[in-house]
Amino acid sequence: MPALREALLNAQFDLSQKGKFPVVILVGGVDGAGKGETVNLLNEWMDPRYIQVHAMGEKTDEEQQHPPMWRFWRALPPKGKIGVFFGSWYTTPIVSRVLKQTTAAALDRDIEQINHFEKMLTDEGTLIIKFWFHLSKDAQQKRLKALEKNPDTRWRVIKLDWERFKMYDKFRKISEHALRETSTAEAPWIVVEGVDARYRNLTVGQILLEALRKRIDHPVIRVAPDAAPLNAPIDKLNVLDKLDMAQKLEKKKFEVELEKYQGKLNLLTRDPRFSKISVLVALEGSDAGGKGGAIRRVTAALDARHYHIIPVAAPTEEERAQPYLWRFWRYIPRRSHFNIFDRTWYGRVLVERVEKYCSEADWMRAYSEINDFEQQLVDNGIVLVKFWLAITKEEQLRRFKEREQIGFKRFKITEEDWRNREKWDAYKRAVCDMVDRTSTEIAPWTLVEANDKYFARIKILKTLCQRIDAALKKVTLPPKNGLHS
Amino acid sequence: MPALREALLNAQFDLSQKGKFPVVILVGGVDGAGKGETVNLLNEWMDPRYIQVHAMGEKTDEEQQHPPMWRFWRALPPKGKIGVFFGSWYTTPIVSRVLKQTTAAALDRDIEQINHFEKMLTDEGTLIIKFWFHLSKDAQQKRLKALEKNPDTRWRVIKLDWERFKMYDKFRKISEHALRETSTAEAPWIVVEGVDARYRNLTVGQILLEALRKRIDHPVIRVAPDAAPLNAPIDKLNVLDKLDMAQKLEKKKFEVELEKYQGKLNLLTRDPRFSKISVLVALEGSDAGGKGGAIRRVTAALDARHYHIIPVAAPTEEERAQPYLWRFWRYIPRRSHFNIFDRTWYGRVLVERVEKYCSEADWMRAYSEINDFEQQLVDNGIVLVKFWLAITKEEQLRRFKEREQIGFKRFKITEEDWRNREKWDAYKRAVCDMVDRTSTEIAPWTLVEANDKYFARIKILKTLCQRIDAALKKVTLPPKNGLHS
Repeated sequence: MPALREALLNAQFDLSQKGKFPVVILVGGVDGAGKGETVNLLNEWMDPRYIQVHAMGEKTDEEQQHPPMWRFWRALPPKGKIGVFFGSWYTTPIVSRVLKQTTAAALDRDIEQINHFEKMLTDEGTLIIKFWFHLSKDAQQKRLKALEKNPDTRWRVIKLDWERFKMYDKFRKISEHALRETSTAEAPWIVVEGVDARYRNLTVGQILLEALRKRIDHPVIRVAPDAAPLNAPIDKLNVLDKLDMAQKLEKKKFEVELEKYQGKLNLLTRDPRFSKISVLVALEGSDAGGKGGAIRRVTAALDARHYHIIPVAAPTEEERAQPYLWRFWRYIPRRSHFNIFDRTWYGRVLVERVEKYCSEADWMRAYSEINDFEQQLVDNGIVLVKFWLAITKEEQLRRFKEREQIGFKRFKITEEDWRNREKWDAYKRAVCDMVDRTSTEIAPWTLVEANDKYFARIKILKTLCQRIDAALKKVTLPPKNGLHS
Repeated sequence: MPALREALLNAQFDLSQKGKFPVVILVGGVDGAGKGETVNLLNEWMDPRYIQVHAMGEKTDEEQQHPPMWRFWRALPPKGKIGVFFGSWYTTPIVSRVLKQTTAAALDRDIEQINHFEKMLTDEGTLIIKFWFHLSKDAQQKRLKALEKNPDTRWRVIKLDWERFKMYDKFRKISEHALRETSTAEAPWIVVEGVDARYRNLTVGQILLEALRKRIDHPVIRVAPDAAPLNAPIDKLNVLDKLDMAQKLEKKKFEVELEKYQGKLNLLTRDPRFSKISVLVALEGSDAGGKGGAIRRVTAALDARHYHIIPVAAPTEEERAQPYLWRFWRYIPRRSHFNIFDRTWYGRVLVERVEKYCSEADWMRAYSEINDFEQQLVDNGIVLVKFWLAITKEEQLRRFKEREQIGFKRFKITEEDWRNREKWDAYKRAVCDMVDRTSTEIAPWTLVEANDKYFARIKILKTLCQRIDAALKKVTLPPKNGLHS
């Protein structure tokens, strides 16, 4: 035991100094099988200052107003630290199914989502260790009876414990199914027999030590997939080439339309049903594509108290210590909020791809990771509207030159903009792949022909109105009495 | 107007590039005086991507379980950005007093706290601009009637508006008092007449521009106070010299006491009344003073699901962009949580003072800032227990040498520890001043004679038990029926 403890402490130290990856430990299983005791012991053996234990109990209202995974994202350990999840993303799917609140098909969908999520975490460098504490039905019954007999521990057994015990077989069947389906190569389950405390503790300690040492001493060498299907599109067509970039709107017509759609958007966001949804506008586009101007035309229709703009720049130090989607999860809108992302998670498959900030394997897997992410947003009642502001290479040049002339626009043009321009074709290619692979039914891209600013702004406002209107139509509010007119 | 807009945009750009200070804009005043319109206009004039508007409405339950100022701390803008607070730390004190929910004395206490808070923000480099929108009683009545007359706007006037109108005189009297008392040199109120929209907008725009330009073009040069009262203590006594460092506990006695007080602590944290309080342990001490070991003896008595350890190291990039107390506010325990800070906000008057990481003026003002901070914690039902682990210079040398010998302790000793040791006297002086100035009745320091680890650990556990026990005795739970035994 002292040797194991010393080895664990050493591994923990190496993790914080050279390993530099996050460690996620999931603790699940049967009540009374020693989950709590084991977690306490890990804290005793190792340096508890670098272990974060998360008991995922009742959701706070902030958590309720976000997608279910939000509370786990906000609790993920950064690189170099260990996060222990006591109650995890498995709890709700399994328990809901045991209580027959969900269907078998829903459970399987949840399981698939979990597999995607854990794959993404391990691809991002996280070490996941999943412990399932087991106790046979007999042992469980004996334990409850023993606790009840002892006057000192009688209080620990409540009615709910016996009710749960009655569902033992059902719980076992469903959790075995879930475990089988989620015991992946990257993150297998380790089933720990809970009866004998000594055996249990040693097993957990040794498995943890082995896993840590293996990853610290033999860092994963990631290999790019050998097939590179993105290098040659079959049809050699680019979605951007199909756009009619000559589309225009006269200034007078624009002013009329602007008032019309800003008014409409304003009314939509003040609709009582808006309290049940939220809006996330994802704005991407060429440099000088007119994102800033478009944002201002949208926000002018809104009350400043109800929207937030999230300008996406280089990630901060805290953000770099997390999976790349983490910094976007931070700003997912709560119910009835309206968030506008000025650049988005698509940076992964645009600038990070073109500038080689991440490996080919990294940006290739990002397409499906992003689709999973967006699915969760939409499932949670978020109206996700994605725009690509397209301009031609000539129009960009004209705007760059113009910006260099005008006083208060001077800060909008930098050396970097000129450098990016040289990679026009690579970016164009990346945009095409992005639209191909992430324009899903639930979250389609709207390509905006933005050579003419008037045309672009109206298209954006109009699309927003349509999408929000359609979402509101699906909302039914409970009838209320005594409302003041 | 276009000139003003361009100047504001330029100022905003300079703020993000060279100014690099946070800007807090408070928007308060009479309903209907144009608060919302003005904020919308600021967003239209400037780049809304770098303005964060916070409408402080109903508290979420996470906010309810923290001290009242927590929600404002979490929303403070970082350096280079503008935060607009719509509804601020003035709202609750003023409204509660108007509704007679609090006494005049309570309002004055709130006002004093606000002044301290704003002084701290400005001392930390924040530019605070406070706008109060005024509307005469007549104008207010006319406005409500006009809104009611127009079929398009009738819905905007609700019963509550007229009820509030009846309290106009009371509201005016109380807010005038609050404004007068909080119109300080650092953060004066600017009263804006709300009747005429054009006048109002221009006034706000110009005042904002002037304030921004002044601070950007003439950065504050902070002057240390000319008197340096800390340089020569009158009694030439050091509180550390008075400790009886020879105190010891036999190993056998220790083991008995350890079990006793760990058991007691465990029971205390499982007391139903514990759900109404929370515990914050602040641990400071000499290098090698035994903080880690003490923490492990405390956490061994607790359930890992219910405590959090916050190891305090160098601030992150996001933390450096905020006032120094911000990073501690992040980890203030919610109701029924037990948080242990391994080093604390006292770093400001210890390492930052001795190593000259901040100016003398900065650490001198920290004493009262910290007292204000701790007052808020205690007022919110947090049991704050502060320990200083004192060892002698000789004992430290012995431990340093021992650590260099023992395998799994090797990482506990660094070059820096040896360097700090050379400044032993300066640190001793700083500790003495710290204890003198921050050992308040509500949050006293417990000095722990830690040459003997056994003695130290028991003293810490015992003190913790006493403090928590005393706090629980003050809690009364509402009677409950039908509770399962």
